[in-house]
This record gives sequence, structure tokens and C-alpha cells, in this order.
Amino acid sequence: MYKPADARSHVRAPATIANLGPGFDCMGLALNGLADEVQARWSGSQETVLESIDGVDAEVLPRDVKRNCASVAAIEALRLAGEERGVALRLRKGFRSGSGLGSSSASSVAGAMAVHRLLGDALSEEDLLRASLCGERVASGSAHPDNVAPALFGGLVLVRSTDPLDWIRVDVPESAYFAIILPHRQVRTEEARRILPETVPLTSVIENCRNAASLVLAVARGDLQLWGRSTRDCIIEPARAPLLPGLEEARQAALQAGALGFSVSGSGPALFALCDDPEVALRVSKSIGEIFRLRGDQFDTHVLRADNHGALGFRYDREDN
Amino acid sequence: MYKPADARSHVRAPATIANLGPGFDCMGLALNGLADEVQARWSGSQETVLESIDGVDAEVLPRDVKRNCASVAAIEALRLAGEERGVALRLRKGFRSGSGLGSSSASSVAGAMAVHRLLGDALSEEDLLRASLCGERVASGSAHPDNVAPALFGGLVLVRSTDPLDWIRVDVPESAYFAIILPHRQVRTEEARRILPETVPLTSVIENCRNAASLVLAVARGDLQLWGRSTRDCIIEPARAPLLPGLEEARQAALQAGALGFSVSGSGPALFALCDDPEVALRVSKSIGEIFRLRGDQFDTHVLRADNHGALGFRYDREDN
Repeated sequence: MYKPADARSHVRAPATIANLGPGFDCMGLALNGLADEVQARWSGSQETVLESIDGVDAEVLPRDVKRNCASVAAIEALRLAGEERGVALRLRKGFRSGSGLGSSSASSVAGAMAVHRLLGDALSEEDLLRASLCGERVASGSAHPDNVAPALFGGLVLVRSTDPLDWIRVDVPESAYFAIILPHRQVRTEEARRILPETVPLTSVIENCRNAASLVLAVARGDLQLWGRSTRDCIIEPARAPLLPGLEEARQAALQAGALGFSVSGSGPALFALCDDPEVALRVSKSIGEIFRLRGDQFDTHVLRADNHGALGFRYDREDN
Repeated sequence: MYKPADARSHVRAPATIANLGPGFDCMGLALNGLADEVQARWSGSQETVLESIDGVDAEVLPRDVKRNCASVAAIEALRLAGEERGVALRLRKGFRSGSGLGSSSASSVAGAMAVHRLLGDALSEEDLLRASLCGERVASGSAHPDNVAPALFGGLVLVRSTDPLDWIRVDVPESAYFAIILPHRQVRTEEARRILPETVPLTSVIENCRNAASLVLAVARGDLQLWGRSTRDCIIEPARAPLLPGLEEARQAALQAGALGFSVSGSGPALFALCDDPEVALRVSKSIGEIFRLRGDQFDTHVLRADNHGALGFRYDREDN
């Protein structure tokens, strides 16, 4: 394989909504318009180095190559490819970390993908996922795949099994719009996991299984009404509500403004509303925003569609590299 | 609407596999080749009567019109249609009751459908489901819809919500074959429900949600390999294993003989194996049969495909009526 010493790669990996309501640790989808970027070149030695981190929240991220999720994923990707050279990485963060939109997953996937491209697309999909999960583990304490997989493959990804890895990718309908609110608070994934119940009543298990199965069918069929009705979580969301002030008011506001469904993105604090029209999505984001404004909270809003390409399906033009 | 006093109807409703592994109380599918039949005519009074019950296990079924699920469903269907006349019913059982193949659901659906046809297809799908669930409740103590819905609508039916009723129907691929073993023991649905855990570890919830969602996607895509991998239940099956002697040996035998997936049908004792070829399914049914033969148990085996029509999509020729 041709791996010139002056080769460079430039990749990006999107933000993601994990869980999507009933699919805790099962599924997530990629968003178009918010992404992390990584540029990579051979470092000239066996060492991998993080040359720079810039963009949103760059100052709070670890610069230690063994603790930054992008470089950890890159190093694992090199190892899986049997490559002994190290890489020099430049990471550009495109959205807030600790936001519930899969910031660490986007960086991890971008780190792994940058190595993949540098090596002339040498890695298998499974190894790319594995390398990305290594980055995710170092950032959040657990290698849950529900952000990493959609950031890598795009669309909605259902992870059926992590050992062995088994996932199913579904295209998200172009007609789906997501009104997203990003309160300027952090919810640490580890804390959001500690608060979860160890056991769940069987009746709640049935309800979440029904909605999780219904949700993926709805996406596969392009039935946004059914998708909205399936966006219900009676297990994780109630447990995390204390970490998410304003949640119920925001839900009411979103549904009244025309959203088809509403839930927490990942472990929050980001919230999302599913809409079938960009105008409605804008109105919904304003309505939710009003709730947080009245609470005196700072926040950003976004109206985004899904990204059906993911990091793997995206290529910068050659001139960019 | 034209409802002549000498009108007759003749309907049939298929056997069903509920749960399908990970989808406890969520989903089921209809089987082609095993069915209950009901013939109905106006009774000439406001009374509904059960004129006869024959066929398999006819002698053990309640003949009281208020306790037999077919007549209970018929009476509820009449009530929902605003019909004051009563009907005279003849029920023919096509397969064993207490078998785990939805015997009471097939009778309930046939009872409701017989009235529906007699009234010139007067009822909505939702009212048909509601009436059938009334029959199911009287037979098994709970109105779970995972047998009733596929018996009525055919194919695989995922019930997203029972209140309000919300279900999604998926065609089952023609290439799917089910090797079914029916041990000649009864597992009473009520007992099989009493043995279930009240709470479930969160890790098991995640695993079942993943497999339930993956299973419906696999059926919708016609991906039998994925369907087989998704046929795993880490919640209900382990809890019910004490009621199902031979379960693990049967699973091993089925998978070794080429089955793609294996689980309990409903609350058992029926077991099913998913296959992608009729020859393989025959071999699988023989292999499982050998396990039960060695145990000294009596049993029947069947190799069946799915019924994508259900009771609603099926019509006897006019000569039959």
C-alpha cells in the first residue's frame, strides 16, 4: 500500500443524538452541521503527537496524547493497522463538549478516521469502530457505542451487540428536522450514568422495548408521525430528570409548538425535538428557548437535519488537504 | 347496511408465535397452516349461543358463552357495532390449546371476525382488535396483544401501545420457515406470567431492547441472518426455563442442525426455530424432536411459514359459507 511520508488527511465527524428516547445504549443518529475535524500527517517518528486543539471549548480538553480521545483513537487505529509510525494531529472542535451531542465520540471517530485516510483507507469498518470506542472509553469511562457508531457510519445506527460487534445502519428521512437546545451547563456522562437505576420494573422494560422497536421501524419507513409517538422513554429520562431542570416545561412547549417527539439527547443537557418541517422546527426551538430564557439559563439553539454520510462517507476536496 | 337474517359467516384465525425471543408482550407473528375456525349466523334472538366446539382439545374448552373466548369476543364485537341481535357460533379448534401458539387468541380473533363478516365488515381494525382482546382476557387473565394482533392482521405485528392502541404490521419474508415443536404438556399462561421477575437489571433491559429493535428491522429488510442473531431473550426465557425442561438441549440441537435462531413461542411449551430453507427446517424439527424423544416426552412437530394475511385478509370461497 502507498503511504508517502508527506501524506496528509483531513476528516470530520458529526455530532450525534444518542438514545433518541427509548434506545438507551442501543442507538443514535448523526446530525448534519455540527462536527469535529482532525488533520493528520506522519509525525516523522514512532510518537503520535497532538499538535493543536482549537475551536469550541478547546481550552478545557486534555492535551495529553494518552488522555485526549482523538489521539487515543488514532493510536489504536495505527495499532490495528499494524502501523509503527506515529502521526501528528490537529483537532478542531466544532461544538460544545459535555453537551449530550457526542462531543467525545466525534473527536474519537475523527481521530480514527484521520489515520484510516492517511493509510489509504486501510481499516475495516469494524476496526474503525473499535478504535473509535477506545477514544470514547478514555473520555467518558465506558465504551458505549450509541454516539460513536452513527458519527462513523451516518444515519441512524442500532448497535445490536458490542461483543461481537453487530450493528445495523438505517437512512434517516430527509424530511426529519431536529430542533436542538444546548443549555450552557455540563452534564458529565459519568455522573449521568451513576444516577441510573440498577433494576427496572418489567412493565417499563416492555414499554421501552416496544418504543425502541417501533422507532427504528418508523425511521426505516420514513414515518415521522410514528417516530414521534415512539420517542418515549420511561426508564432513563425520569431517572435523569433531576440533572435536567426545565425538562418537562421544555417538552410541553415543544409539543405545543408542533414537535412530533421530544427527549434528551444522550445524557443531556442537550434536548431535541423531532419535526417534519423546518419552519415548525424553528418555532419549536424558539419555544423551548423561551423556557430556558425565563429560567435565566444560557443556551444555544440549532435546527439540523440528519447526516446520512457520517465520517466514513465524507471527503474533503483534495484542495482542502 | 344489509344484514339479512339468514346471513352466515365462516372465518379462520391463525396460530401465532408471540415474543419471538426478545419481544415479550411487544410482538408476534402469524403462522400459515394452523388455525381455528368459527362459523356464525344470527341466533334469532338477543342471545349469543355456542352451538358446538369440535376439533383439537375441544373437550377441555369452556362451553359457557361468557367464558369461552370466541363467544366473548363475538359478544364484544356485536356491542361495539351497536348490534342488538345475538349470534349462534360453531367453533372448530385447529391446534392444541395451552401450547404457546396463541390458541385462545386464534379463537378470540375468529369470534370477533365472524361477527365482523356477518355484519358486512362493519367494524374498524381497532374495534376488531379490542373485541379480540376481550376474548383473550377471559382466557388468559390478561389482554396482552402479542398473539391477538398478528392473528388478526397477519405478518409480524409490533404493538407499540395498548392504550391508546397503536400497532405496526410488517410482512414476513416468504423465505422464512419455522420448525416448531409442541410438547404435549400445558404451560398455563397465568403460571408462566407469575414466574416472571418484577424487576430486571438495566444491562438486560439494554440487551433485549437492542435485539427487539434489531429483530423488527431484520424482518422488514428480509435479513434472516440478522433475524436469527436477534432471536435472543435474556429476561423472560431464563426465568421460565424451569417450566420448560429440555429447552437448552433443544436450542443446541436446533442451532447445530442449521437453525438461524431459536426461542420459546409465547409462554411455551412450544419452541420454534427460524430457518431459511424448508429442508433445513425439517432437519431442525427432527433434531429437536430427538431431544424430546430421548426425554420420553410426547410432542408434535410442524414446519410452517408465516401467514401474511391474518384473519382479516382471509376469505373462504362463497361455496364454503
